[in-house]
Amino acid sequence: MDGQAPRAGSREQGRMLGVLRDEGALSRVALGERLELPRARLAAELGRLIDDGLVEVGGPAASRGGRRSTLVHLADDLRVIGIDVGATSITAAVTDGRCEVLASASEECDVRLGPVEVLRRARELAARTAARAPGRLIGAGIGLPGPVSFRDGMPVAPPIMPGWDRYPVRDELASALGCPVTVDNDVNVMALGERHAGVARSLDDLIFVKVGTGIGCGIVLGGRVYRGVAGTAGDIGHVRLDDFGPPCACGEVGCLEAYFGGAALARDGLTLARTGRSPVLAETLAATGSLTARDVGTAAASGDFAAASLVREGGRRLGQVVASLVSFLNPGMVVIGGGVSRLGHALLAEVRSAVYRRSLPLATGNLPIVLSELGDDAGVIGAAWSATERAFMSPA
Amino acid sequence: MDGQAPRAGSREQGRMLGVLRDEGALSRVALGERLELPRARLAAELGRLIDDGLVEVGGPAASRGGRRSTLVHLADDLRVIGIDVGATSITAAVTDGRCEVLASASEECDVRLGPVEVLRRARELAARTAARAPGRLIGAGIGLPGPVSFRDGMPVAPPIMPGWDRYPVRDELASALGCPVTVDNDVNVMALGERHAGVARSLDDLIFVKVGTGIGCGIVLGGRVYRGVAGTAGDIGHVRLDDFGPPCACGEVGCLEAYFGGAALARDGLTLARTGRSPVLAETLAATGSLTARDVGTAAASGDFAAASLVREGGRRLGQVVASLVSFLNPGMVVIGGGVSRLGHALLAEVRSAVYRRSLPLATGNLPIVLSELGDDAGVIGAAWSATERAFMSPA
Repeated sequence: MDGQAPRAGSREQGRMLGVLRDEGALSRVALGERLELPRARLAAELGRLIDDGLVEVGGPAASRGGRRSTLVHLADDLRVIGIDVGATSITAAVTDGRCEVLASASEECDVRLGPVEVLRRARELAARTAARAPGRLIGAGIGLPGPVSFRDGMPVAPPIMPGWDRYPVRDELASALGCPVTVDNDVNVMALGERHAGVARSLDDLIFVKVGTGIGCGIVLGGRVYRGVAGTAGDIGHVRLDDFGPPCACGEVGCLEAYFGGAALARDGLTLARTGRSPVLAETLAATGSLTARDVGTAAASGDFAAASLVREGGRRLGQVVASLVSFLNPGMVVIGGGVSRLGHALLAEVRSAVYRRSLPLATGNLPIVLSELGDDAGVIGAAWSATERAFMSPA
Repeated sequence: MDGQAPRAGSREQGRMLGVLRDEGALSRVALGERLELPRARLAAELGRLIDDGLVEVGGPAASRGGRRSTLVHLADDLRVIGIDVGATSITAAVTDGRCEVLASASEECDVRLGPVEVLRRARELAARTAARAPGRLIGAGIGLPGPVSFRDGMPVAPPIMPGWDRYPVRDELASALGCPVTVDNDVNVMALGERHAGVARSLDDLIFVKVGTGIGCGIVLGGRVYRGVAGTAGDIGHVRLDDFGPPCACGEVGCLEAYFGGAALARDGLTLARTGRSPVLAETLAATGSLTARDVGTAAASGDFAAASLVREGGRRLGQVVASLVSFLNPGMVVIGGGVSRLGHALLAEVRSAVYRRSLPLATGNLPIVLSELGDDAGVIGAAWSATERAFMSPA
């Protein structure tokens, strides 16, 4: 590598790289059909990509029968970094050009430490991970737990990220890593991950609902992330359910997040433990001195009645909000992910029941409401995918 | 006219016609700049449009100074029909190629009479209106008060339109009128009307909320109507606000429409009149024997306390739903229209207060929440616009 990340040289080359990323090895004939390019043009553009080392001839996939046709595929040594910064952890992965994870690692990290410290750790984690699968870096993507200006590559007024407001995340990472970088909201990249490689594969209209420390929603319409005019689309955590509800970390009251975010579940679990209404949680509290949302989920799964009721009640409220979303947007799929989604089928049952009861039958008729398939990998895969979009689609 | 409506012959010609529709007369130079077409290509495509009589040379608009440049504009005699079928009325308009209304007319008509009768009346009304501004018909658009399959040109399972389910509205009208026809949901065409010629002019992301007999919402994202996978996007009338709320015409309970649609306002107004809590409504009831939503609005505007409270309460509930929409979609503008919007600023104040209180500050920071500017014309203008899109953008 000569210090400059390899990139597509034209729009057609970018489209070719995108098709090879999404579909894997293809014959020259099939690639030409996908792109609707005349043979001579195809040969010229493809030749350039091969010369630049972005595409290789002879692929892992078998010919689909019939006459033999040379396969082409993305170069094996292309590498993309995907970073998912959560409220309390960082995950970094290195993928190949098709966004398949080759190596990944996670560590605890409080986003409130601020951008300098958190990005330093993220870079180190990414470097250690990348060293396990060496190759040529073509791009990196990062997801952050707050509103992001995608265009400017920086967070904008993020409620739970003190010190991050308008910090130049993209420019700093791009200069440190020596490749183009995309910065997006964590829920948006999760939605992209599930669409590229997960349960929502190839769907054009979907909603990804993340229930973790915070609650948010990634909206994919017509195959693209819909961000809204100020980049805040998908903010469902702070929809007010009750003017006299519990206080929320955002400073308001009665937000969905104040009922069903990670902190709310831990808080309500603590009440159940202290009042003795949940024997399982009381035991956990006595043993560890504190309770997390995960403890509530474990208690619910073990059959603890009070903890299970808490999950059902939260799922009902979440379902109420998701039902509105479904009525508004009539999506092709609702995917539920994030830490709290580990509560699994009890949660799903409540959400489904609320949506099917409250939304228009025509909108729910063919609507799958499913759990995330990629789990903790959704964010890093989506961030890597977003990075390839930039590397492939913005000609050098 | 030779029995065949004139249409664009190529994609570039379609784009030219679209620019001349949206911007009016332009110099050849300015048109070439808008389309980023090389001069020779521009001359050839424009020549074809002039030969076909779709575009004329020498226009009403003055040159913007500097050296003289020939103006071109859409032919003066192009005509488009826009039809807006509501629950209880039909409006038909004939417009020029720029979708400016040249003549329009309305009549009472119950959509429950079924498609044969309603479409017969719509055709007659359109023909009488078109006769007042003769010219060459290039297309017609119609909005219907229910879910529509835009692709198939027909209503699909519309709740308040018995007999209309999958009736081939587009094909029947196209054959009767001898021009291409588009069929869409009434709220979608209203949103397009406000975007083309009204308060939302040139905005790419907006929500149009119609409060009339029914309550619905047209969503424009990235400059295009977003319809959802089954065409039901924007259904906010049947978002359930309360599991134990009043019964709705759709068969469910507690829908927004059951609180604040035209029928709900009339029903609640009747209660106020009968119990004597509204002296104004009691008087109207005694005089006319019945009450409508409009009577409630008039009473509220005249200062009747009970009627005004009804409007405020409805506005609060509507605002609750609009706040969710704003949080989800982060639009650039919210436009409120339909019959009940005549309640005006009292209604607007309640909706604004709910949205600004409940949605994320970043999403409401630069968000205008305004009344429809085109009023009853929004639907016919939007339907005509949709018709020109088809006539211009689908080459013959």
